[in-house]
Amino acid sequence: MASTKPLISMVQVNDLDYESFITVFGNVIEHCALAAAAVWRHRPYRDVNHLHDYITTFAKALPLEGQEGILRLHPDLAGHLADAGQLTSESTNEQRTAGLDSITADEKQKLKSLNDKYRDKFGFPFVICARQNKKEAILNGLEQRLQNKCELEVKTGLEEVLKICYLRLRDIVECADIDSKL
Amino acid sequence: MASTKPLISMVQVNDLDYESFITVFGNVIEHCALAAAAVWRHRPYRDVNHLHDYITTFAKALPLEGQEGILRLHPDLAGHLADAGQLTSESTNEQRTAGLDSITADEKQKLKSLNDKYRDKFGFPFVICARQNKKEAILNGLEQRLQNKCELEVKTGLEEVLKICYLRLRDIVECADIDSKL
Repeated sequence: MASTKPLISMVQVNDLDYESFITVFGNVIEHCALAAAAVWRHRPYRDVNHLHDYITTFAKALPLEGQEGILRLHPDLAGHLADAGQLTSESTNEQRTAGLDSITADEKQKLKSLNDKYRDKFGFPFVICARQNKKEAILNGLEQRLQNKCELEVKTGLEEVLKICYLRLRDIVECADIDSKL
Repeated sequence: MASTKPLISMVQVNDLDYESFITVFGNVIEHCALAAAAVWRHRPYRDVNHLHDYITTFAKALPLEGQEGILRLHPDLAGHLADAGQLTSESTNEQRTAGLDSITADEKQKLKSLNDKYRDKFGFPFVICARQNKKEAILNGLEQRLQNKCELEVKTGLEEVLKICYLRLRDIVECADIDSKL
């Protein structure tokens, strides 16, 4: 999923004032500009992995309610925001990569039913890194994770958020020669 | 500063799903939807003060970089976003209440110069509850607070954020019979 914007170098990243930094990185965690705003203080970063390390540290240091809050800022997969064309551009691309824009009516009904159960049980949406999973794996993962305890699901969901974040960072920053963490 | 939207009752607030709750309260801390997303788990709230208590607890439990991050999500007072008409509606109204939409060229230049110094020193913008201060008090406050140490300014700025948040909550929720915390 190539971004249409030109990649920026780590030198340029390290030169951004906080306002520009938040504009560029404000959605690497969905709708959570606070993550970018928080880690700006740690410049200069060596590379994209280093920047991601700080975001990871920030997210994991949040109180439990903050980690749940991060999950609540995410849309349902193939949910009503997707239907209404109201996803962020990042989520639109990610859900398309997983094949969620071309699921059958039956699959969509099953996904909606599982998403509803998941939200009712946990009070936040099911989050999975769609670029690393196809629709079949997503449906299976949702069924399995529905069985988990809430605390484990916060932890699992947050790990998925951080994978999504990492791939979004690599869509923004030049890093062809940096080994992927995933 | 009356909101043009009808106030909602605390019964209605307690009945909101997380997605609607985030839509309604996502900007009570400027650009920080995470605060609303985090505290949703604590429903039911007794009243607006109770809801604000949870937001306060959440904000104060953030690691220092998260508290600085909250400040970085705020615009400069009478800064370039105000000039460009790009403030949130809440900030537009608040800055108008303080008289910042009608400052003289000299005052504006002084404010810009002080804001720049403040940002350079601390790495976040000067935040003050504009609805509780007129432009003269803001200019004086800025000059005084420029002398503080960074740690004190994070604390002071966050207290102002929480005052702004409280007034924004009272613009949204019916609370005519609830004593103001401010």
